[in-house]
Amino acid sequence: MSKNDQPTINRRQLLAAAGGVAIIQTASGEQIQVADPAIPADPTKVPGSPATPVGTRSPFEQTQRRVFGGAISTTPLQDLHGSITPAGLHFERHHAGLPTIDPQNYELLIHGMVDRPMKFSLAELKRFPATTRICFIECSGNLPIWANAKTTPQSLAGLTSQSEWTGVKLATLFRETGIHPKASWFLAEGSDAAVMTRSIPVEKALDDAIIAYAQNGEAVRPAQGYPVRLLLPGWEGNTSVKWLRRMELSDRPFQTREETSKYSDPLKDGVVRQFSFVMDARSIITFPAYPVVLEPGWIEIRGLAWTGRGHITSVDISTDSGNSWQQAELQAPVLPKAHTRFRYLWKWDGSPTRIMSRALDETGYSQPTRAQLETARGAPQGPFAYHYNPITGWQIESDGTVLLAPGPG
Amino acid sequence: MSKNDQPTINRRQLLAAAGGVAIIQTASGEQIQVADPAIPADPTKVPGSPATPVGTRSPFEQTQRRVFGGAISTTPLQDLHGSITPAGLHFERHHAGLPTIDPQNYELLIHGMVDRPMKFSLAELKRFPATTRICFIECSGNLPIWANAKTTPQSLAGLTSQSEWTGVKLATLFRETGIHPKASWFLAEGSDAAVMTRSIPVEKALDDAIIAYAQNGEAVRPAQGYPVRLLLPGWEGNTSVKWLRRMELSDRPFQTREETSKYSDPLKDGVVRQFSFVMDARSIITFPAYPVVLEPGWIEIRGLAWTGRGHITSVDISTDSGNSWQQAELQAPVLPKAHTRFRYLWKWDGSPTRIMSRALDETGYSQPTRAQLETARGAPQGPFAYHYNPITGWQIESDGTVLLAPGPG
Repeated sequence: MSKNDQPTINRRQLLAAAGGVAIIQTASGEQIQVADPAIPADPTKVPGSPATPVGTRSPFEQTQRRVFGGAISTTPLQDLHGSITPAGLHFERHHAGLPTIDPQNYELLIHGMVDRPMKFSLAELKRFPATTRICFIECSGNLPIWANAKTTPQSLAGLTSQSEWTGVKLATLFRETGIHPKASWFLAEGSDAAVMTRSIPVEKALDDAIIAYAQNGEAVRPAQGYPVRLLLPGWEGNTSVKWLRRMELSDRPFQTREETSKYSDPLKDGVVRQFSFVMDARSIITFPAYPVVLEPGWIEIRGLAWTGRGHITSVDISTDSGNSWQQAELQAPVLPKAHTRFRYLWKWDGSPTRIMSRALDETGYSQPTRAQLETARGAPQGPFAYHYNPITGWQIESDGTVLLAPGPG
Repeated sequence: MSKNDQPTINRRQLLAAAGGVAIIQTASGEQIQVADPAIPADPTKVPGSPATPVGTRSPFEQTQRRVFGGAISTTPLQDLHGSITPAGLHFERHHAGLPTIDPQNYELLIHGMVDRPMKFSLAELKRFPATTRICFIECSGNLPIWANAKTTPQSLAGLTSQSEWTGVKLATLFRETGIHPKASWFLAEGSDAAVMTRSIPVEKALDDAIIAYAQNGEAVRPAQGYPVRLLLPGWEGNTSVKWLRRMELSDRPFQTREETSKYSDPLKDGVVRQFSFVMDARSIITFPAYPVVLEPGWIEIRGLAWTGRGHITSVDISTDSGNSWQQAELQAPVLPKAHTRFRYLWKWDGSPTRIMSRALDETGYSQPTRAQLETARGAPQGPFAYHYNPITGWQIESDGTVLLAPGPG
């Protein structure tokens, strides 16, 4: 292999590979073994490939979002480590696809009950004092009611992801425009073809809202709102309006279609809860989980916990189907409104059991069971349940099979 | 544009674009204006593109590493925000290119002065208790002595980058193999064609060394050591051996070519410093910096500070050529051995001046001037100066031009 050769593995074809040999699938579906000179048996014997302007993943790494139709893709929680979601694997949820926005033409309008209506270019937004924070964004519909025993963490809860976001505090922009004393809500409007709109209390703007232009160090990705999105830490994802182009201040909510026909939560007795912004504490074990097959011995149970109300204070683990609970280790630093990695070392003796995780947050809120949720709110309605954060269990069979325990879907 | 159309902008051709129109450069070098249906004048009027398995950057975002030959590429510090470096923009330094390593065939050997020589597969490494931390990796040669007034932050100091790393503590593996009481050093060997080798004190292994298999949530990138690298937080980058395949315990250093002919620091009087592992505190202003042209008014001075010795405790800023210093704001959370984002709001009155930053760390160490460094160690030798961390200034001219101040190169 010459110094400038790049690996030539075709990802669509590759099934498996070992030193110098690859197993590929042909167009007709046949699996054949081929010599692959791009996979040296001894990598010390061939010069490697040169430095490049932008790095890529190893061709052996195929981790992907799972795409549902054109408007949803889910983060592969079971394949990820730590707390940061790579930008290319951040979940997507959009109502009319990703718009293509020219950053040179971009403008953000703030008007309505303000002293000085203003437009800001992207360059102007970047000149304001900046702030950075790591936080999760979770879709309020982050649980498919069709979940069954063979549902993975990605399909069950992959509508939550975490990035390091940078931008300007919305409070800073509102100081520029001035806002009327009676302005209590603002409309956030996206420039996608759905013209996504939500009403947000001004109180949140003055608390911790960010007009974000960077994600994990670089420009926000198109799927997350390029060039600029609203970021409302801890609140349901749809309120962090992507491709943000306009904010209008008012003394009342705007009652947009996204908060009347959608993103409202049917409760019992026909009552509907509106403006349920904050995401409740939740946790999920990402290992072991379906489709892992375990062998008896020491296992590090791993997962993520998060809450829209501040810090996760504890994650309890049960390895005996909920009879007893022990505290997992939380990876420091535990940040507010952020995915918190938990780990718990456990020796599985080969007996069937159920493992579960339960998140607690700084407000004293404890992640509820499904029964507790349904007593309070009734059964979820589909296809995705809103603000539905039940304790999730994985059933481990004696043959090592791990299946999603009934209940969460 | 149909729902499935993707933007068709050719990055090599694109010079500028505005609603519906792109300016491109033809093969002959001519610049022409073309209608570009992929850039809608009003993005709300056309359906966007659908969800995808792996997301990409906006075609308008061209931020890149700068490649020097085949063996170096630098992080575009001036284009990044916050503290995380996107994996594709993490600097590269390698001595024989990037090896292609099949993760199924990967093995890590630990032998020498151990009780039980052992080999670990990648799957076995991932089963051990894991740990995650955010830290920088900086090449010890992170300053080109050819730097001049028109050197950017990327070219001056782009051999430092930051990731969230996950892996198994090396101490955990050494508990598995057992190590002899007299084992005080170990050899770390890479499986690249240079067979990169360094001697590392066992003390560091037992302190905070990590065998890392994940970077920013996903598998370590090939340019950073896929599938497994050694991570020695705070130490010069070459000791965090990439593509790690072997560790040999011994009672003395191995005196490899990388620690005799290279990675040793000539001092005054012909003395050479060997095993200078820890990276000293350093800072650099990334905005404003060459080639930015400023206009008078409020400016947020931004940059990064870091130290291999723990936490950054303060970054001082001078906006009057070093006559007075004020504390910058540090972005929380300030993590140990990590890039720390600093910001300082300043009103430039249009007069020529020099702005500078000075990092202090928890040991009381203060980033030195070039004169202090040269008094202690003599002038640096090239082409890259090792462990050379002088206070860096940017000269602002009355026309707003920003140039690298003499001294750091």
